[in-house]
Amino acid sequence: MINVIKVGGAVVEDPSSLDILLDAFVKVEGPKALVHGGGRSATKLAEQLGIESRMVGGRRITDADTLRIVTMVYAGLVNKNIVAQLQCLGCNALGLTGADLNLIRAHRRPITPEGIDFGFVGDVDAADGSRLLDLMSAGIIPVIAPLTHDGAGSLLNTNADTIAQTVASAIANSAVNTPVTLTYCFELPGVMGDPSDDSTLIPRLNEPMFRRLVADGTIAGGMIPKLENAFRALRSGIQKVRITNIRNLEGGTEITECSLE
Amino acid sequence: MINVIKVGGAVVEDPSSLDILLDAFVKVEGPKALVHGGGRSATKLAEQLGIESRMVGGRRITDADTLRIVTMVYAGLVNKNIVAQLQCLGCNALGLTGADLNLIRAHRRPITPEGIDFGFVGDVDAADGSRLLDLMSAGIIPVIAPLTHDGAGSLLNTNADTIAQTVASAIANSAVNTPVTLTYCFELPGVMGDPSDDSTLIPRLNEPMFRRLVADGTIAGGMIPKLENAFRALRSGIQKVRITNIRNLEGGTEITECSLE
Repeated sequence: MINVIKVGGAVVEDPSSLDILLDAFVKVEGPKALVHGGGRSATKLAEQLGIESRMVGGRRITDADTLRIVTMVYAGLVNKNIVAQLQCLGCNALGLTGADLNLIRAHRRPITPEGIDFGFVGDVDAADGSRLLDLMSAGIIPVIAPLTHDGAGSLLNTNADTIAQTVASAIANSAVNTPVTLTYCFELPGVMGDPSDDSTLIPRLNEPMFRRLVADGTIAGGMIPKLENAFRALRSGIQKVRITNIRNLEGGTEITECSLE
Repeated sequence: MINVIKVGGAVVEDPSSLDILLDAFVKVEGPKALVHGGGRSATKLAEQLGIESRMVGGRRITDADTLRIVTMVYAGLVNKNIVAQLQCLGCNALGLTGADLNLIRAHRRPITPEGIDFGFVGDVDAADGSRLLDLMSAGIIPVIAPLTHDGAGSLLNTNADTIAQTVASAIANSAVNTPVTLTYCFELPGVMGDPSDDSTLIPRLNEPMFRRLVADGTIAGGMIPKLENAFRALRSGIQKVRITNIRNLEGGTEITECSLE
């Protein structure tokens, strides 16, 4: 089993949460990679520099100044601190963006029909799963920041959930006979019937159930694109997708194909 | 021949100089690595954030806030932009700090006898030349930011000239039958008798000549530690050391051992 684990900004930007995550992460057996966010730190640095953070549909509008900020925060501050801490825990971590080793190519998102220009935001074209497998076979643990590149010299800002799905799919399509699990960590124990009641954890979720729970309002907000990504991941060759939190990397909600219902 | 080329902040922070460097760098044949600085951008970001930059003997006093800044600027902004541009030029670049792959271990510099605490400044203990050789053998071009780690979870700020020398020595000591050239790029054509007169370029310099030129004031300022590093490099197994500028990577001043005078 190869594990690709994605954690958001709220985890990596809080030292005690990060400690819990990294302790759990080092215990995961077999080849593994970590994909992280860092949006809150980026927003904070932008504020300190007097640069306005503009979000549309959960995505950051990324002008040249904002690209500098996310490059500093994601590839520098967040990524390298995780790498240094994993090294301390005996994991041979290697911090990466999509530009390093040409791992993840993307193109600038076109201006939307509504006229929104996301700027230096990248939609992924291809990820090099074979290279990531080679690194993992050599005992190296990729730690991936949510940045891609366009092959023409520019970095691009790409959503970390999308990076995790792309990377896990690319690995799954390169790995022969080794299944890939993609795990999304967030604040709650998993997908919940009622976020305030832990006993309402939904242990397994397939796409028809998901559509019903969106229709009746049980699943809403940021959870929707997260689950859309999860189902896309299942359709792209990843064997198992999980939504959980850092205290329970093996638990939470398992996202399944319909045939497994 | 393996080439390790070091460029300072003045080059990597000016887009047109960086273009000249990268065009010259991609033409260098054989395995190669790039080590870069970025101090001016760090000072500028510190200013924007209202954090005072304090330098002692050319070295930055690095408190926790300053460590965050240099991590963002060196490992993020400067490093990843170079990587993206090298990828555009067909070089399979990989951005690294000393924490990545445990490449460069260091320890915090002790408080000096004069009572100066440099904070999170690292003095290098060991670099993994064998790993760097493996990367270069696989066609990968390491791009190294001037940060190390202490193995206990903390990044450390380490002078880029020292990083270049350490990395080149470690490669030289791991490479069998392949000589290593270490090239320091800076603003002038090389070591000059008179910095304002290009015809006074000193094409070859050994240590006794260096001591005489320091004593008579011809060589002064920041050039002294640069040349100290160069002679240390020659004593540490590196076959050739060169001081030149980005327009002439094969020219400039060749630093030689006494026996070659």
